[in-house]
Amino acid sequence: MNILVTGAGGMLGRKLFAKLLAAGSVAERPITSMLLADMSGLSDVSPSDRVQTVAADVSQRGVAESLIESRPELIFHLAAVVSGEAEADFEKGYRVNLDGTRALLEAIRKIGPGYCPRFVFASSVAVFGSPLPDVIEDDQGLTPLTSYGTQKAICELLLADYSRRGFIDGIGIRLPTIAIRPGKPNKAASGFFSNILREPLAGTEAILPVDESVRHWFASPRAAVGFIVHAAALDTSKLGFHRSLNLPGLSATVGEQLEALRRVAGERAVALVKRVPDPQIRRMIGSWPRSFDARRAKELGFVAEASFDEIIRVHIEDELGGVLRV
Amino acid sequence: MNILVTGAGGMLGRKLFAKLLAAGSVAERPITSMLLADMSGLSDVSPSDRVQTVAADVSQRGVAESLIESRPELIFHLAAVVSGEAEADFEKGYRVNLDGTRALLEAIRKIGPGYCPRFVFASSVAVFGSPLPDVIEDDQGLTPLTSYGTQKAICELLLADYSRRGFIDGIGIRLPTIAIRPGKPNKAASGFFSNILREPLAGTEAILPVDESVRHWFASPRAAVGFIVHAAALDTSKLGFHRSLNLPGLSATVGEQLEALRRVAGERAVALVKRVPDPQIRRMIGSWPRSFDARRAKELGFVAEASFDEIIRVHIEDELGGVLRV
Repeated sequence: MNILVTGAGGMLGRKLFAKLLAAGSVAERPITSMLLADMSGLSDVSPSDRVQTVAADVSQRGVAESLIESRPELIFHLAAVVSGEAEADFEKGYRVNLDGTRALLEAIRKIGPGYCPRFVFASSVAVFGSPLPDVIEDDQGLTPLTSYGTQKAICELLLADYSRRGFIDGIGIRLPTIAIRPGKPNKAASGFFSNILREPLAGTEAILPVDESVRHWFASPRAAVGFIVHAAALDTSKLGFHRSLNLPGLSATVGEQLEALRRVAGERAVALVKRVPDPQIRRMIGSWPRSFDARRAKELGFVAEASFDEIIRVHIEDELGGVLRV
Repeated sequence: MNILVTGAGGMLGRKLFAKLLAAGSVAERPITSMLLADMSGLSDVSPSDRVQTVAADVSQRGVAESLIESRPELIFHLAAVVSGEAEADFEKGYRVNLDGTRALLEAIRKIGPGYCPRFVFASSVAVFGSPLPDVIEDDQGLTPLTSYGTQKAICELLLADYSRRGFIDGIGIRLPTIAIRPGKPNKAASGFFSNILREPLAGTEAILPVDESVRHWFASPRAAVGFIVHAAALDTSKLGFHRSLNLPGLSATVGEQLEALRRVAGERAVALVKRVPDPQIRRMIGSWPRSFDARRAKELGFVAEASFDEIIRVHIEDELGGVLRV
């Protein structure tokens, strides 16, 4: 199995290729070679017989063609400009998120009959915008309210059409908000959902900009990587023409997050969460999905966490070496 | 009011500019100039002080910029490759229907603050594909099953995002199947819906490839032009972020079409309809919309015909000079 990963330098990309290398196979087929592409170049990843790295912006002329020169049978397309940046920089968002994806699809199509790779596309629940029901069903329409969500929705439509025409064997997975994101606090509006757990678990303060009743939709980084790998091995004949899926996840309030933190790490950890209301974040989050039914994906074997206690334990195992220092 | 019409040489485009010229104004503002653009060049249309014509493929480099050089305040974007051609010629469909629309939107955006034209986009019920309910509600999701429908759905998403960002004041109208299309029978799978009325009304035979129980969704050319003009004058603040509308129309079976033909033109006209079943057309039509609720558009003042008798009378008035020759 020859594999291409775009956006391999991102948080999920790094976890994905580490998991693939550790497993050595996908869908019971041994991995013979893997090309890891990222704008950043992945200079910290050591190439090997099986693994090559390349600095690549897939939206630049000729780059998509060179990435699929070796005819990868499996493509994980994770490369994207994130939500906040796509909103702040309109041109960059469309160039990377839409033109980059289309360049890859076109490069594949132009190779012609006989080449039809599995194409796993990391989509997002940002394809949905208010008004939304409390629990979103599998047939919820595409109504993005951000440029990022618009770009992901357009790519989902392309994925379906290119699959229907037999150019790719595509599957789009709408990832929940990832928590607990490792690393430093970032400026994404959704960042606090991770910050209020990750920082106290490391003994430092975190800011909570909304009240405890705010409900949102989550999966751990480990679950997200599991979704991506599961999508690579899935029998896509079960998808029919509708190639993008709402994934299972955990619907939880901020209050439930904090209760889980209290159970796992005690009152001292919860006390590190400082309440600094931010009406702008509150307003943005008001239009975000709160919960999904995700029956279709569950029937197809996708599995997520069942509680925030579990999500916190996953974080302690995967990011803190199994040791809680607080 | 300075107006641009793309696809002005098409059936609806010609009826649209004729109606605009006859009215002399849109939304109570006098029309000062009108640029009619079409791939074909419109050599049969005489330019005047107010009307200019141009041969233009908006998907070609620089064309979109030149079309909006005079900063039209109102743009009717009708230019498109039709469904059958977009399916047969994948590259042409995406180039004209997606890249052409995007080029126009980008040319507008790049002019910058202060320029935000009303942008009326001719979309299609082809953005919906099976499984579909018997009556489609306003919140039905985008699930196209053709490349044409995919391209229209993508343009709707762009229209919404460009409107939300303040680059255009966009409105997308999902036109029903137009019947009775004037002119010669064409090879579109939906062509027979018009042929079985238009040809007998002119005293010639027509072929019916499906059985009489087939139900579909219709408006006359006159109603379609009415929708387009109404969209130009609408208060778009009522649309919110969801900028594309299911339009009112008439849900009718082939049997109901033929009954109307019998009432208006007699048994002799109906006898000119020859039944030649075509399983491929039957299968394609099985995935098409049969009826819409269209409450939102009705509340916004869009009006369609209430019966096929009316649609036939409109055809006799507009295309046959008011005289029935059969």
